[in-house]
Amino acid sequence: MTESERSATDGALAAVIARMRGVLEPQGPPDPSLERLYGWLRYHLGWAAVNGVAADTRSAKGTRSRVCVLACAASGGEPAAAVDAAAAIELVHEFSLIHDDIEDADATRRGRPALWTIVGIPQAINAGDALFALARAAVSHGDHAPAAAMPDLLRCLDAACVRLAEGQHLDMALESGAPADAAAYEAMVARKTGALLGASAAMGAIAAEAPETTRTRLARWGELVGVAFQMRDDLLGLWGDPGATGKPAGNDLVRGKQSLPIVLGLAVPALAGAIRGCQAPARPSAADVAACLGAMEEAGIRARCQAMAAARAEAALRLLAGAALVPGPAAALAELTRCAVDRDR
Amino acid sequence: MTESERSATDGALAAVIARMRGVLEPQGPPDPSLERLYGWLRYHLGWAAVNGVAADTRSAKGTRSRVCVLACAASGGEPAAAVDAAAAIELVHEFSLIHDDIEDADATRRGRPALWTIVGIPQAINAGDALFALARAAVSHGDHAPAAAMPDLLRCLDAACVRLAEGQHLDMALESGAPADAAAYEAMVARKTGALLGASAAMGAIAAEAPETTRTRLARWGELVGVAFQMRDDLLGLWGDPGATGKPAGNDLVRGKQSLPIVLGLAVPALAGAIRGCQAPARPSAADVAACLGAMEEAGIRARCQAMAAARAEAALRLLAGAALVPGPAAALAELTRCAVDRDR
Repeated sequence: MTESERSATDGALAAVIARMRGVLEPQGPPDPSLERLYGWLRYHLGWAAVNGVAADTRSAKGTRSRVCVLACAASGGEPAAAVDAAAAIELVHEFSLIHDDIEDADATRRGRPALWTIVGIPQAINAGDALFALARAAVSHGDHAPAAAMPDLLRCLDAACVRLAEGQHLDMALESGAPADAAAYEAMVARKTGALLGASAAMGAIAAEAPETTRTRLARWGELVGVAFQMRDDLLGLWGDPGATGKPAGNDLVRGKQSLPIVLGLAVPALAGAIRGCQAPARPSAADVAACLGAMEEAGIRARCQAMAAARAEAALRLLAGAALVPGPAAALAELTRCAVDRDR
Repeated sequence: MTESERSATDGALAAVIARMRGVLEPQGPPDPSLERLYGWLRYHLGWAAVNGVAADTRSAKGTRSRVCVLACAASGGEPAAAVDAAAAIELVHEFSLIHDDIEDADATRRGRPALWTIVGIPQAINAGDALFALARAAVSHGDHAPAAAMPDLLRCLDAACVRLAEGQHLDMALESGAPADAAAYEAMVARKTGALLGASAAMGAIAAEAPETTRTRLARWGELVGVAFQMRDDLLGLWGDPGATGKPAGNDLVRGKQSLPIVLGLAVPALAGAIRGCQAPARPSAADVAACLGAMEEAGIRARCQAMAAARAEAALRLLAGAALVPGPAAALAELTRCAVDRDR
């Protein structure tokens, strides 16, 4: 990107954070009775202390807002036009994390207690609902995008939110024993991870008032990158360096997740027994886990995962190359694509 | 209403049900893996059997969609223009019931097992999220209202959803011991019950492309009717005829709800002890409950509740009378207002 492209992008990303913070202030006259709810949301976002648990500096990667802003710039728009859309996508993602943590009984989020462990499940469900509504209000009550773009922005966001919930449904169904194969896994991940990243890119293009073909291409690009990202994530969840990922080796295996390598491994008769022997509720030794991971790698599972991720990334890069995009931001999107499958954390 | 007004309203209400049913069909090519999720939602709506629990004919009153359609007609619009908005409001209400039942640990909804008791809490949280997203898509992907009205429709819906979650937050805070007085109660109810009914009326006016003053008046009318309705509901929750309400006498008292008469009663020193002695986790005898209800009525609590509800209804009627509305549908809205505070069930 040129210096001015980079500076416009950075400015828009700072505005996204400001917009997110603004959305998390209650509207109307000050009301102490609502401060608690909004304080919980700011805690979840990493911006506030609550009930004795300290604030954190926000550590989320912000990949979705970066994609949204870059897609807008790549489609010929001003990056600032994507600010409301990017804020909404980040907030939808954050809402889904509040509910996911309850659904998965995960007590920790980004190194701090998950919201539900502090405020209880009933209030945390409702806090998630509030954040979901606020996320959408970030677009509908926003003024960064051209007014004519608003209906399409909201249509795109709503469709992605439906797919996100469908993906979470499929993920939980897989965890509870629904038949899993690579196709079922990919259908789940395309929704659970792909839908929001696809919407990030598409909403950037919509905010830029790009033609339909560009929107569709970028939507599909985002979905593919999301899938590739998750496939790489799943690989790192078994073979990642604990020092880089922050999670113990073989973490997903022991937790009984239906991640891609597990799904592929369970289909191999010679591996299935060892994998099942490591999954919850079994309490395998570190040696058992290491042996199982070794056998899976030996059988080519790790390489197949990486190849599948790489194939999605390459398809995504072809979509970018075939679109008429502004070179600088398009190059940044291509870089992001490669990162998704090369990263170690 | 004239015959043709009535027929247009009835036609629109039938179209609302059709729109709701359409929204609850998965989009795209048939996908058996998603049938389960949408089947659960249809079960919650009363349209399908699931896991051996029979379907029900839908028994919800549909007050919100009726208000939306009538407000549209009263504002000079075609009732059909309000169909997407009315469907969205009903679906938002339904989503909130799925989550409320989990949050309140209510195992029964409209005489059938609550969704979470059938599919488990994690999947039920997510099914609620899906329904919330689908509700909004009913407007953003709809074509009943004029295209120019869509941004305002969605702004109004989003703002109401935020207030709905705020209201549920305040309700749970009251239940867990936050200081309660009549003002705190009304602030809660204005959000929890008033917000959606206010949005029903306002979105009807928006779909009719009515001027801002009409929208504001109808929004405020709906909020007041919602508050009056809930106040009457709270009265019936203590003194209602079990044969009419379907709930045991004194039900709210024993459950420990912070309903209006309880809040007013707890502020009277001579009543507070008896009330606390009946609330969960105490297990009062039927005689204790009857004595407590008698003492509350004697102290004028029941009459004060009814007077408060009636005052809100009268304020609402004044708003209607002062607005330039089409007489027939406006009379139907006035009738609804009176019903809210006169009804026995």
